[in-house]
Amino acid sequence: MNPNIANKMLDMAPAYKVIYFDVNALGEPIRFLLSYGGLEFEDNRFSDESWPSIKPNMPFGQVPVLEHKGKTAFQSIAICRYLAKQVKLVGKDDWEDLEIDAIVDTISDMRGEIALYSYEENKSIKDAKAGPLFNETLPFYLGKLDSLAKKNNGYLVLGRLTWADVYFVAILDYLNSMTKKELITNYANLRTVKANVEASPNVKAWIAKRPKSI
Amino acid sequence: MNPNIANKMLDMAPAYKVIYFDVNALGEPIRFLLSYGGLEFEDNRFSDESWPSIKPNMPFGQVPVLEHKGKTAFQSIAICRYLAKQVKLVGKDDWEDLEIDAIVDTISDMRGEIALYSYEENKSIKDAKAGPLFNETLPFYLGKLDSLAKKNNGYLVLGRLTWADVYFVAILDYLNSMTKKELITNYANLRTVKANVEASPNVKAWIAKRPKSI
Repeated sequence: MNPNIANKMLDMAPAYKVIYFDVNALGEPIRFLLSYGGLEFEDNRFSDESWPSIKPNMPFGQVPVLEHKGKTAFQSIAICRYLAKQVKLVGKDDWEDLEIDAIVDTISDMRGEIALYSYEENKSIKDAKAGPLFNETLPFYLGKLDSLAKKNNGYLVLGRLTWADVYFVAILDYLNSMTKKELITNYANLRTVKANVEASPNVKAWIAKRPKSI
Repeated sequence: MNPNIANKMLDMAPAYKVIYFDVNALGEPIRFLLSYGGLEFEDNRFSDESWPSIKPNMPFGQVPVLEHKGKTAFQSIAICRYLAKQVKLVGKDDWEDLEIDAIVDTISDMRGEIALYSYEENKSIKDAKAGPLFNETLPFYLGKLDSLAKKNNGYLVLGRLTWADVYFVAILDYLNSMTKKELITNYANLRTVKANVEASPNVKAWIAKRPKSI
């Protein structure tokens, strides 16, 4: 292709490209943050069948991946933190950023605990994990997060909207899907967090137009 | 106590306090970063026996915890990122920070894979996990990290010392301990990363004076 035309096409393309499976899961917090900030992005979704041919070309064999200005980034939470800076959902100083990061990593820990149960292929091991997960681990995490949301007036940290809230609400569908439950039904303050994130017109518009995937 | 005396004692105490078990593990990257930057800290180590009485007072029941100016922070990687900013081991812009964060989270993923094996209590399940871990997962991660270290002239990212290098070297004892191996023996470029981190006089002094714990 003529390099001038190639450059012109690059100029016209959205600045960001998200590469992920055709599911919400770990890609959705990235899509939420881009949408929240009104940053145009190409939502590149591949089929499960094409994954084996894509995987070897991905950094550490993983997605989601974010492309921007010819560069490629990986690790979903790292990508979210970068985007949060671009869309101004971060703290006002280093300590506030630490407080946000700690909540995000805690949500990620909870997601990891759920995944250990959900992706367990051995039925008897999976059954044995259900009790501790649903009777101890999840009530512990969700109860603590709900208390934080109460203390922070409907946000998880700092008493105002940060990317921790966006991350939580965006990944909630995935947590619900893995557990086959509506996890926050009995947690009124976490329902308020969800409502506060979805009150963003840009987020609301994204939810309305996004592909119907799990 | 007389509040003036209490304030004076607070003034004289180190600005940072690290609370953790008497082991390296997840506390050591925090101690390395504080040491690297010459930031004085109280290295508060508790015994395994006292943990049950400490745990309920920790955020989300977890350590390590960092105390600073009357505030308490948790989640080890979040704490490390905060300290990295204080000791100037971060990127020069948001994208560089994203690149560092991605490497740190990848090391953390590798640590998680090792932990799933190491902390497995059922011997037959543990044995079944050994093959995939030692023949596939670890060679994959360590090989990729070694390639990055080669490309970056003895550093994991950005071609210069960042907190990703410090994090990796500080947590390596823990990874070795969990696997009962010297993981980087056959990875020359990762050995260079280790040498580059330990070339810091402050880090060298910390390693010489730290308690002999695993």
